[in-house]
Amino acid sequence: MKMIPYTIEALSRIRERCPLIHNITNFVVMNSSANILLAIGAAPVMAHCRSEVKEMTSMAGALVLNIGTIEEAWLDSMLLAGKTANDRGIPVILDPVGAGATKLRTDAVKKILEDCNVSVLRGNGSEVLSLVDQDTKTRGVDSTLAVSDDMVDTAREIALDRGCVVAISGEEDCVTDGEQVFRGKNGHPLMTRVTGTGCGLSAVVAAFCAVEDGENPAIATAAAFGFYGLCGELAAEESRGPASFETAFMDRLYTTGEEEIRKYLKVKRDQ
Amino acid sequence: MKMIPYTIEALSRIRERCPLIHNITNFVVMNSSANILLAIGAAPVMAHCRSEVKEMTSMAGALVLNIGTIEEAWLDSMLLAGKTANDRGIPVILDPVGAGATKLRTDAVKKILEDCNVSVLRGNGSEVLSLVDQDTKTRGVDSTLAVSDDMVDTAREIALDRGCVVAISGEEDCVTDGEQVFRGKNGHPLMTRVTGTGCGLSAVVAAFCAVEDGENPAIATAAAFGFYGLCGELAAEESRGPASFETAFMDRLYTTGEEEIRKYLKVKRDQ
Amino acid sequence: MKMIPYTIEALSRIRERCPLIHNITNFVVMNSSANILLAIGAAPVMAHCRSEVKEMTSMAGALVLNIGTIEEAWLDSMLLAGKTANDRGIPVILDPVGAGATKLRTDAVKKILEDCNVSVLRGNGSEVLSLVDQDTKTRGVDSTLAVSDDMVDTAREIALDRGCVVAISGEEDCVTDGEQVFRGKNGHPLMTRVTGTGCGLSAVVAAFCAVEDGENPAIATAAAFGFYGLCGELAAEESRGPASFETAFMDRLYTTGEEEIRKYLKVKRDQ
Repeated sequence: MKMIPYTIEALSRIRERCPLIHNITNFVVMNSSANILLAIGAAPVMAHCRSEVKEMTSMAGALVLNIGTIEEAWLDSMLLAGKTANDRGIPVILDPVGAGATKLRTDAVKKILEDCNVSVLRGNGSEVLSLVDQDTKTRGVDSTLAVSDDMVDTAREIALDRGCVVAISGEEDCVTDGEQVFRGKNGHPLMTRVTGTGCGLSAVVAAFCAVEDGENPAIATAAAFGFYGLCGELAAEESRGPASFETAFMDRLYTTGEEEIRKYLKVKRDQ
Repeated sequence: MKMIPYTIEALSRIRERCPLIHNITNFVVMNSSANILLAIGAAPVMAHCRSEVKEMTSMAGALVLNIGTIEEAWLDSMLLAGKTANDRGIPVILDPVGAGATKLRTDAVKKILEDCNVSVLRGNGSEVLSLVDQDTKTRGVDSTLAVSDDMVDTAREIALDRGCVVAISGEEDCVTDGEQVFRGKNGHPLMTRVTGTGCGLSAVVAAFCAVEDGENPAIATAAAFGFYGLCGELAAEESRGPASFETAFMDRLYTTGEEEIRKYLKVKRDQ
Repeated sequence: MKMIPYTIEALSRIRERCPLIHNITNFVVMNSSANILLAIGAAPVMAHCRSEVKEMTSMAGALVLNIGTIEEAWLDSMLLAGKTANDRGIPVILDPVGAGATKLRTDAVKKILEDCNVSVLRGNGSEVLSLVDQDTKTRGVDSTLAVSDDMVDTAREIALDRGCVVAISGEEDCVTDGEQVFRGKNGHPLMTRVTGTGCGLSAVVAAFCAVEDGENPAIATAAAFGFYGLCGELAAEESRGPASFETAFMDRLYTTGEEEIRKYLKVKRDQ
């Protein structure tokens, strides 16, 4: 299927079905991720306590696991929620915030990938590379690593090895399930000057995957990336700095539709 | 007393006295609830650690208990703070976020209601109904349940049974202490597209109750609902989406006064 | 060195070097502090888990310890991070939110000051005074205590006693290392109507200290205060209330440069 009609259709499904997205995420972005999900038409719920995550995931259309301010007890909840999501067959999106920066984070990501079937692993280049490359440790907090052809190859290897979609955000985006490869060029540098835009993208990927019924999470992820990035581009035109940008961006997530997608979506299937 | 002069008077008392509102609330809304309280002229404090809640509640004019991202340890703190508030005779506002969705939440709300004298229970229809109706479990995350006459009757029963004000937000609002019934029509659909507006309303109810000196928490709550909703209506006119709405709304909480209340307040005492 | 050229130079160093600031801070301001740091050109990371703070601090250019929603486990992490920062010789900024209001908070601040070499203690008048004055306990949540000559003397005593910079925010600001005294008059009352502006200032102080290489943390702190306050003044002119103020303020932190600093900086070295 072509990207533009796919993206339009996926977005309209989100707004129609209002899928419940269960987030076990970090303290920094709980508010902004919830607002981002509301803006695109989904319904967010944040719940992390081990004694309720099973019930909460059981009502959800997708699960987001984000390790941004992880503690041991939260990891336990994530594993339980992840298994519940797997049992129900709903997509699990993993955001490996800061993987490669500390052992706690790298180990948490590996543990989740081992114990749960993750549908989509979404991070920046250094976070994703840290899962295969010891040397990436030193670049663990560097989010500006460009998406090179080498990185695409590594992403494909990880995708095949882990059986999941690997989605890397950067100046250029790359989404692959090991076979299909999507590359996107939507986005704006101001997105890197607002905290939580990466985490918010993971939440939006979850919403797109929730209405995809698991058929092709790679194209759903690529559509989410393209839509999110073009909202950023449009918002940047109306902004004077990062805070007015954030406001305009969230508004754009709410107002952007078919017309803008037809005009501005820059996502291509490479292979 | 009539609603319009009452609301004007209550608001001016908040701005004059700047009551300290102690919030034990969820991670998602801590920032927005604090800003909402500052905007209306109150002073927020967020503190949840068991070893300090007693001291903090002892300085406050009202206490907000909000179970949005509850854990067992936080419930302990809430109970201790609630009892401290009761000992001092200051109002306790309970926001049962997600009650009916998980056992942890439903049980937490029931435990708080049993152990503490709650002044106002403020939630949406399904959250409140879940306290009496087993069947509401499945609607636990549904916040759009309309306020019907049946629901008003149930709210009155709960109010009489628990000895508290029951306040239900929705397209139409309903506030009752079992005898008095207030119904309000202020508000705007965009309020449901911003996370934390319900939680923020609970905080505003706390501020209105803090300057009421416990005489009639039902009218204080109804005034808070009306004022909050009309700020939402005014903000919606100046908005392009949920984020610019949130900004305009918070500004309106700060700037709205006698003139707008006289023009736009739509709260009536039914009984 | 003179304040105006110093401030211009420090700001341009932050934007050039993009120092990583490790924050162990409160739930209310995690998002806003991260956005404030991004706006001025620094790189924030929030991490509080005991098993990773050592690694995280080891990568940072400065450490912020903020006790706004402190728990015992978080204090342990703060002490470990503080010692790591000391071993590496990077600045530690301590924000004693609510010190004087509860024993937990006052004790936490004292423990941190005893176990770690704090570079800058930044709070409001009552928070800072509570460290020496038993009687200040009752004013623990009062942030409006004016900076009097008496307070400057007390600040100097604390600075000499603790071997750190003491920086007090208020209508007038005061920064001293016991010998040098800087007084500043930038700022705007709307800053007190937005939660987290004080905490955000502590984060900005950390960024200014991170590029100062420890030579003179007092002047770095005074520059941070002046710059931050003048961004507030400029933002207030474009605001209709606290939320549009916050947006304009964050934008100003991003856009303000040499021209505005030359025109509006009102910081003087007294001694």
